[in-house]
Amino acid sequence: MAKEIGLNGIEMQYLRLSLGLNPAQVGTVTGHSEDDVIAWEAGAAEAPGLAQKKLLDIDEVIEMQLLNTTDGIEAMFKKEPKRRLAFVVYPTQAVYAQYNPEFLSSLPLTELYNTSAWRIKKECQLVLEVEVTLVPLDVESYKAFREQNGLGESRESRAKWAAAQLK
Amino acid sequence: MAKEIGLNGIEMQYLRLSLGLNPAQVGTVTGHSEDDVIAWEAGAAEAPGLAQKKLLDIDEVIEMQLLNTTDGIEAMFKKEPKRRLAFVVYPTQAVYAQYNPEFLSSLPLTELYNTSAWRIKKECQLVLEVEVTLVPLDVESYKAFREQNGLGESRESRAKWAAAQLK
Repeated sequence: MAKEIGLNGIEMQYLRLSLGLNPAQVGTVTGHSEDDVIAWEAGAAEAPGLAQKKLLDIDEVIEMQLLNTTDGIEAMFKKEPKRRLAFVVYPTQAVYAQYNPEFLSSLPLTELYNTSAWRIKKECQLVLEVEVTLVPLDVESYKAFREQNGLGESRESRAKWAAAQLK
Repeated sequence: MAKEIGLNGIEMQYLRLSLGLNPAQVGTVTGHSEDDVIAWEAGAAEAPGLAQKKLLDIDEVIEMQLLNTTDGIEAMFKKEPKRRLAFVVYPTQAVYAQYNPEFLSSLPLTELYNTSAWRIKKECQLVLEVEVTLVPLDVESYKAFREQNGLGESRESRAKWAAAQLK
């Protein structure tokens, strides 16, 4: 976005909604207060350029994750006949921070990761005809599954647990 | 979406968020209560198939509007050098219902129209390199503009008014 063309109030509001965030969460992500965010969206104050850039950058990260993930899924299904896939998401910030910390710097809130997951699900259905189910990580169930199957904690173990939830 | 594969709670939640709606608004659109919607998203009850279909159909309408509008904008800018465009949105349900009633049957809430407008803005920037500004209709300003310019009420008049707001 050209620097001289900033987002107005309604654009800030629908950018926020498209990311799946409430005003308090936009405050957290941009380092402002919830009241500031409400004022930006009401047009009572212009959102600072850095705050706008932060949200637009996050949207771009989500779009890049969407592209990369659907490319990976497309490659995977060239060899496999099944068209269903489980995708782990994280029901709370604590579970997200513990199990998926590598995303915290680019997508600091679990809501952002889940928004990305929803867009991936939608794209996979439309473009790849692959049915993706979002499976919120159930920590107790996952731990029991690992014990039963002698698995350590890893992204692969989480994916195996999630796939088992589809059956 | 195959009939036997329904959306789970977190999927219903992120579908709702992607449409820019709160639980009460999803209740309005699907003919259920806000409490029902909250229960669906918490996984306490499965969302009825018709409610799921209603939201997925709306998302599809928005995607179709996105495709049709960006096609139209692409055609328009083949002949014009300027790469900026104003797109009228509607700040309240009353203004939406009065000025844009032809969308009420497919996108019953102004939030849904605005969500569509946001996706169009984003797509135009990414794909067409056209800068779209969402301009909420200001009824008093619009009426004064029409009077000044001897214009009747029409989509074209609204577009002219919105374009004048960019200068």
